[in-house]
Amino acid sequence: MKKIRRSARIADMTQHLLERPNVLIPLTFFAERYSSAKSSISEDLQIIKEVFELEGLGELRTLPGAAGGVKYIPKISLEKCKEWVTEMLEGLSDPTRLLPGGYLYMSDYLNQPQYVNRLGKIFSSLFTDKEIDYVMTVETKGIPLAFATAQYLNVPVIIVRRDNRVTEGSVVSINYISGSSKRIQTMSLSRRGLKEHSKVLIIDDFMKAGGTIRGMMDLLQEFKADVVGTCVLVESESEEQRLVDNVISLIQLNEVDIRDKKILIQLGNLFQMMEGVHS
Amino acid sequence: MKKIRRSARIADMTQHLLERPNVLIPLTFFAERYSSAKSSISEDLQIIKEVFELEGLGELRTLPGAAGGVKYIPKISLEKCKEWVTEMLEGLSDPTRLLPGGYLYMSDYLNQPQYVNRLGKIFSSLFTDKEIDYVMTVETKGIPLAFATAQYLNVPVIIVRRDNRVTEGSVVSINYISGSSKRIQTMSLSRRGLKEHSKVLIIDDFMKAGGTIRGMMDLLQEFKADVVGTCVLVESESEEQRLVDNVISLIQLNEVDIRDKKILIQLGNLFQMMEGVHS
Repeated sequence: MKKIRRSARIADMTQHLLERPNVLIPLTFFAERYSSAKSSISEDLQIIKEVFELEGLGELRTLPGAAGGVKYIPKISLEKCKEWVTEMLEGLSDPTRLLPGGYLYMSDYLNQPQYVNRLGKIFSSLFTDKEIDYVMTVETKGIPLAFATAQYLNVPVIIVRRDNRVTEGSVVSINYISGSSKRIQTMSLSRRGLKEHSKVLIIDDFMKAGGTIRGMMDLLQEFKADVVGTCVLVESESEEQRLVDNVISLIQLNEVDIRDKKILIQLGNLFQMMEGVHS
Repeated sequence: MKKIRRSARIADMTQHLLERPNVLIPLTFFAERYSSAKSSISEDLQIIKEVFELEGLGELRTLPGAAGGVKYIPKISLEKCKEWVTEMLEGLSDPTRLLPGGYLYMSDYLNQPQYVNRLGKIFSSLFTDKEIDYVMTVETKGIPLAFATAQYLNVPVIIVRRDNRVTEGSVVSINYISGSSKRIQTMSLSRRGLKEHSKVLIIDDFMKAGGTIRGMMDLLQEFKADVVGTCVLVESESEEQRLVDNVISLIQLNEVDIRDKKILIQLGNLFQMMEGVHS
């Protein structure tokens, strides 16, 4: 790129950083790109850093030394998370969303890239600096959420299949019991999908008794992986015993009354923990 | 936001535009945000516009008048598309990727957000200004590609299910015949998923005879929708007659020889058309 003035350089650096979350970019890369001194680049980065902090977009972390550089770490505040989730809650409280079996129709949110990206930013913010290797989910509706999260963490996604499709090569399969329906089901993961001893973040859209998440955890044991965290968008109250602990939820569905068309919905345990911290 | 200097303003405007592709932002929004005159904002936008053009990131389109504003339209050149796809081709030519049935293991690419986003940028660039209402795909492996595409077009995604899950409400189902396996299969779409008379872009990861895509088109007829385009990452040569026409492919798989572990793979018809234009 030819030598350009500071304002143009800043526009270009901003786009470059935003497109590469959690990637370390050496300062020499920018210095050569704009034929500028490293000291000018550092000043530019300082300006961008202040804007990102002011806007709550995340951190611009500078690592010194020969192997150093700058890294954009997307991270939003819990207050911002709460604001976004509260906005969704209002939309989800509409009783026409009630579906048989105590489910809520949420696909209009889960199919909108801007909402999905927001949720991915929330989940990824919770696991900054946890050195996640993979984000894992099970088909189908959790996939967009898992991708959005992985995009900000800059790691690949693992999609567990509920069938055993030909296009994945050899697979590891396990049987699990769905906590709600009590049926034996199968889930499988491509053997090539995951390196052993990896650190994995599990993401899903909905959890009731937690049978599916328990299944994913069991499957991960086959790969000697370490589950660093588990997050769901909605956790629903269940009469069954929970099959998993320590699942972070953004939304909690307490009661669904199909007859009277009533939904009791509230902020999930992430924010309840937060209240705990403040009080 | 308090009044800030030009370079900080430009960092903030750049992030704001990049995060909202295909959204019209009134100039007054920026003017009020930075307590600046509209003329300064226009100058800032001109700087960003030049950087975006220089970097091949897309267009910054300014619409005049009271209902006007500025819109970032991600659009990359065919040359850039070709460069990215050529890079993938090299990785995909590895014979250890061969799977029974003439399939290729591609999940390592399809599971990496940065590759998926690149592919989404390619697909969306081809349909700028086509007023797409939805991007449609069928579960499972096309979902990330569809989301990445939809994110740049700023439209929702429709996911067609191969089963009939409870959490979608009432659905429209059709039977279709998989062109390769000749089996009758079912696909279904939530009735709430799609408004009638919408303009739809179909995205999938792999096409052989095209039975699945034919099925999606038939399903869309039930919603009186208009298929504006169909794109696949890989099209594979098939001895069967093609069930669909005018499918754009990025990669073409000509021959897979499991015995001799050989793959014959090349750039897809998008680039073959491009050569045609140049000659």
